[in-house]
Amino acid sequence: MTLQIDLNADLGEGFGQWKLGDDDALLDIVTSVNVACGFHAGDPSVLRRVCDLAAERGVSIGAQVGYRDLAGFGRRFIDMDPDELTQDVLYQIGALEAFARVAGTRVRYIKPHGALYNAIVHHEEQAAAVVAAVTDYDRSLPVLGLPGSAWLRHAQEAGLQTVQEAFADRNYTPEGTLVSRRDADAVLHDPEMIAQRCVSIATTGRLTSIDGTEVSAAAGSLCVHGDTDGAVEVARRVRAALDEGGISVRPFAEAGQPR
Amino acid sequence: MTLQIDLNADLGEGFGQWKLGDDDALLDIVTSVNVACGFHAGDPSVLRRVCDLAAERGVSIGAQVGYRDLAGFGRRFIDMDPDELTQDVLYQIGALEAFARVAGTRVRYIKPHGALYNAIVHHEEQAAAVVAAVTDYDRSLPVLGLPGSAWLRHAQEAGLQTVQEAFADRNYTPEGTLVSRRDADAVLHDPEMIAQRCVSIATTGRLTSIDGTEVSAAAGSLCVHGDTDGAVEVARRVRAALDEGGISVRPFAEAGQPR
Amino acid sequence: MTLQIDLNADLGEGFGQWKLGDDDALLDIVTSVNVACGFHAGDPSVLRRVCDLAAERGVSIGAQVGYRDLAGFGRRFIDMDPDELTQDVLYQIGALEAFARVAGTRVRYIKPHGALYNAIVHHEEQAAAVVAAVTDYDRSLPVLGLPGSAWLRHAQEAGLQTVQEAFADRNYTPEGTLVSRRDADAVLHDPEMIAQRCVSIATTGRLTSIDGTEVSAAAGSLCVHGDTDGAVEVARRVRAALDEGGISVRPFAEAGQPR
Amino acid sequence: MTLQIDLNADLGEGFGQWKLGDDDALLDIVTSVNVACGFHAGDPSVLRRVCDLAAERGVSIGAQVGYRDLAGFGRRFIDMDPDELTQDVLYQIGALEAFARVAGTRVRYIKPHGALYNAIVHHEEQAAAVVAAVTDYDRSLPVLGLPGSAWLRHAQEAGLQTVQEAFADRNYTPEGTLVSRRDADAVLHDPEMIAQRCVSIATTGRLTSIDGTEVSAAAGSLCVHGDTDGAVEVARRVRAALDEGGISVRPFAEAGQPR
Repeated sequence: MTLQIDLNADLGEGFGQWKLGDDDALLDIVTSVNVACGFHAGDPSVLRRVCDLAAERGVSIGAQVGYRDLAGFGRRFIDMDPDELTQDVLYQIGALEAFARVAGTRVRYIKPHGALYNAIVHHEEQAAAVVAAVTDYDRSLPVLGLPGSAWLRHAQEAGLQTVQEAFADRNYTPEGTLVSRRDADAVLHDPEMIAQRCVSIATTGRLTSIDGTEVSAAAGSLCVHGDTDGAVEVARRVRAALDEGGISVRPFAEAGQPR
Repeated sequence: MTLQIDLNADLGEGFGQWKLGDDDALLDIVTSVNVACGFHAGDPSVLRRVCDLAAERGVSIGAQVGYRDLAGFGRRFIDMDPDELTQDVLYQIGALEAFARVAGTRVRYIKPHGALYNAIVHHEEQAAAVVAAVTDYDRSLPVLGLPGSAWLRHAQEAGLQTVQEAFADRNYTPEGTLVSRRDADAVLHDPEMIAQRCVSIATTGRLTSIDGTEVSAAAGSLCVHGDTDGAVEVARRVRAALDEGGISVRPFAEAGQPR
Repeated sequence: MTLQIDLNADLGEGFGQWKLGDDDALLDIVTSVNVACGFHAGDPSVLRRVCDLAAERGVSIGAQVGYRDLAGFGRRFIDMDPDELTQDVLYQIGALEAFARVAGTRVRYIKPHGALYNAIVHHEEQAAAVVAAVTDYDRSLPVLGLPGSAWLRHAQEAGLQTVQEAFADRNYTPEGTLVSRRDADAVLHDPEMIAQRCVSIATTGRLTSIDGTEVSAAAGSLCVHGDTDGAVEVARRVRAALDEGGISVRPFAEAGQPR
Repeated sequence: MTLQIDLNADLGEGFGQWKLGDDDALLDIVTSVNVACGFHAGDPSVLRRVCDLAAERGVSIGAQVGYRDLAGFGRRFIDMDPDELTQDVLYQIGALEAFARVAGTRVRYIKPHGALYNAIVHHEEQAAAVVAAVTDYDRSLPVLGLPGSAWLRHAQEAGLQTVQEAFADRNYTPEGTLVSRRDADAVLHDPEMIAQRCVSIATTGRLTSIDGTEVSAAAGSLCVHGDTDGAVEVARRVRAALDEGGISVRPFAEAGQPR
């Protein structure tokens, strides 16, 4: 039996004249791309380009839905009406879907962005609202998120396929949760250590937490970043280590073929 | 043989707290609704509501795509790159499509809004850019527009189904074009006169121009307005006159059933 | 000694094609207008018009600063960085000031809008952030707000002039706080009762709470609404009752003359 | 008599998470900064930072007003109502002024951005509309622009101080106008050639046009760019050449002191 895992990264986060991240480099490394849908980043021309390139490379396209917040890049929690959130998410999925279809593929999964991602770890109403958008739109769409989050729990209860992700470059507590970004040691920087942690997650479903104990970290996808040059190098090293380890790196959701 | 014609109107042009037009009244009168897609008006919650109501009533949903211009309500010509315009139109079609699908139907046609509608009467590059969005997205989608426009010509050359519309409440020149809105007699106000003109267009394909001569006005759809109380009354009178005249008022594109 | 009080209302809350409220009617009733500054409502042309009319009538102009949230009309709490909030508030004050100056007057006070108003009743960091914008901009500007709010407390500590407001059409608890809008009896509807309550506040600094007990409600300004026809009538009745009661209705901050 | 000239550059063109240009480097090179005001770029936090730094360095702050067009970076002509354009410009000037004042200085001049800059070379109504904003706001504010433009002509007729600028890195026709950007040789790339051309303009008011003839290029300010690393190097070389040539490089409008 061959071990397999998915690598995902955020893409399409420019807007108009403004660029962010190295989309082209990441598209050669990862197997799933969380594409910004225009509310926190990603103008239509960016979406067109990213979807075309992803389809060409057989990379799976996910909708990286977020709050309507260009000025804050979707990183500000917005206490909005859950029903309005459902419609905002539907709007974004649909907009991205147009470009995915034109590129010969489809939106294959949903992964919320930024403050919305963080909010629906605990915020029951908003978690349910995003799940409602997915069930309204297409019950065959898997959702990607944090293990233990309200988001994945609501999705599972609604009968959606859920995929857990682990963060390649983040430290974990002995309880298996992420060390807060407010702590100095929240983020790992050594590419080799990050790469070996990813291999460990993919092969054993476990990683070494911040106090040295082993914790469970079963994940269908590993999240890497690409918004700095260093981050792309880390992503490349992670991919190489997984390939060298005989792990099949492939999308958790099929890519490249219309359903 | 039964004569038939479509009645279309703009809908979904509120945004957040702001309302515009009487969507509910129009949905009981017309057979096709040009739904704003969020760039000039129409927040996601508005789109959800309008699509749900249109689907319930068997009213056909069209994408009323426009320039990205909330402050100007899409009524300002924007001299944008044609390729970027194509992507902006695709984005809007996709966003609306999500709500149409959730409502159990589909986007059935495309009708540009405001300054974009006016621009692509003559602006060859922008007309071609909007057509490119439609051909990229779905070649089976008809397009609705002004007879003689670059928009309909490019669409026809691209193999799209084109539908001509006539304006119920506008005066026409002896050449069969619209009297400019800058002229005092551009707009008709008498509901009965407007209604009879619509019956004439539907039954004879002709109308009486501003100098009394008869001109050709073949149209598959009649455009009525709804952004004032008076306008709704005119629309209601037009619908009644068509019904009384034995003309079958129905969408030019099928409604209510997923393709 | 003549009793005096100010009447304030929100104005300039349209945007582009969209109208909201009856600015013209209110400008003949109230003495201070909280003018939207473009972030939750109020395009530049609206601001120009409202400032010109207010200056003509000797009505005092206040900056009704809010979150950057056109889609939510500023009614959604946004958990933003306090320093960024300070700059957002400064930006809005400055923008409105341009129109006030052109109209021959100045921005005379600051009153936050919607979710920001509500947030800074309790949110210490955001309250301090808005106060910082005012102290950075002009320490002579008074601030208007809810008695007991973090907003007024921080302002007072910073040496700003604070003005308390009471809500003409809201019920109060026996503790002197507003009955929550979630409760059925939060809002008063009878114009005569509202008007008499306003006279009571202006003459005695007290009002009758929801359980019949008298509570202190000292206020330098009474807030009335204008976004429905009924509301304008209520405002008119309040003004008449105050005038009839011999209470001098005038801005708490001078109007009409450049400083 | 000492020769003197101003060096200006666009600054503050980031937005939220997105950066553009090297503001810090340019602030050490130029004497006037055209600061984006939020409509085409420049969120409030960017404006705060740039104004603070400019004031510290004695660099003059100009309002780089543009069309409301974040997605197009203000590079798309918008055919808007002239009166609405006046109000949009006033809004932007006021917003920037708040930050200039907080920094202890003032907005010292107006220079339109991008498509608006280009439009008002020829578009009489829009040129007059921008001039109207300046005359409404403060008749003592100089305006910066292209020699021969409708913008400078209308400003002069309105009694405003006008300052002509030359473009350091652009080729000129024998008629003294800019070679169109559509032509391959529109832009100069050799830093030394650009620097010497600037010295020539500052000392003789003349430059060598594309066919080798000398043409008049009297300018009170030289425009340099900063949105690429190479551009900063060119700006630095221009500044050094002017300094070495004994030309006093200083703002055409005073900086650093409140009026």
